Amino acid sequence: MAKYSDGLDAVASALAQPSRRQILSRLSTGEATSSELSELTGIGLPTIAKHAAALADAGLITSRKSGRVVTHRIRTVGFDDLQTWIATRKLFWDTQLDSLERHLEKP
Amino acid sequence: MAKYSDGLDAVASALAQPSRRQILSRLSTGEATSSELSELTGIGLPTIAKHAAALADAGLITSRKSGRVVTHRIRTVGFDDLQTWIATRKLFWDTQLDSLERHLEKP
Repeated sequence: MAKYSDGLDAVASALAQPSRRQILSRLSTGEATSSELSELTGIGLPTIAKHAAALADAGLITSRKSGRVVTHRIRTVGFDDLQTWIATRKLFWDTQLDSLERHLEKP
Repeated sequence: MAKYSDGLDAVASALAQPSRRQILSRLSTGEATSSELSELTGIGLPTIAKHAAALADAGLITSRKSGRVVTHRIRTVGFDDLQTWIATRKLFWDTQLDSLERHLEKP
């Protein structure tokens, strides 16, 4: 099972929560502070901090602190492994269907 | 928040579990029965049934029963919304970076 213990658990878990997807959607349009994210989502700052930590652990954002202001930035390469995983599964399946079609077309 | 309550929770949750990704990987190479999935993964049939139900609920597989044999098939369109969601976030971010670059290049 070792080969399935990749970083995908953390990324998929991070995406499985509407508030975290909303945060990522906002950050995909540019950097934002914790306060801005709190205002946008209606979520309190402590919970924003928890979501940000989960997203950072999954490699999907980076955060920097300047005084009391924490600014977050999306890290789109963090999505790459999951994107590739999905695309590969679809590719395998499409190849299966193609070879089935070729088989059926045989005279 | 309504617009964030889409089907992505179920899909991302389904993918956040190594055994379920292993099952999807196997199904991406063709149909398989619950027994075959159990043998491959070393997971007991009752747990395979639970994983299959979660994957079916997320729209990622379909299952059919013939006598006592349950056969599963991947449903790759089930991945489409998550793929699109990720691609759109990346696109927004890339556009942001492009416009920043153009701004910096201004004389």
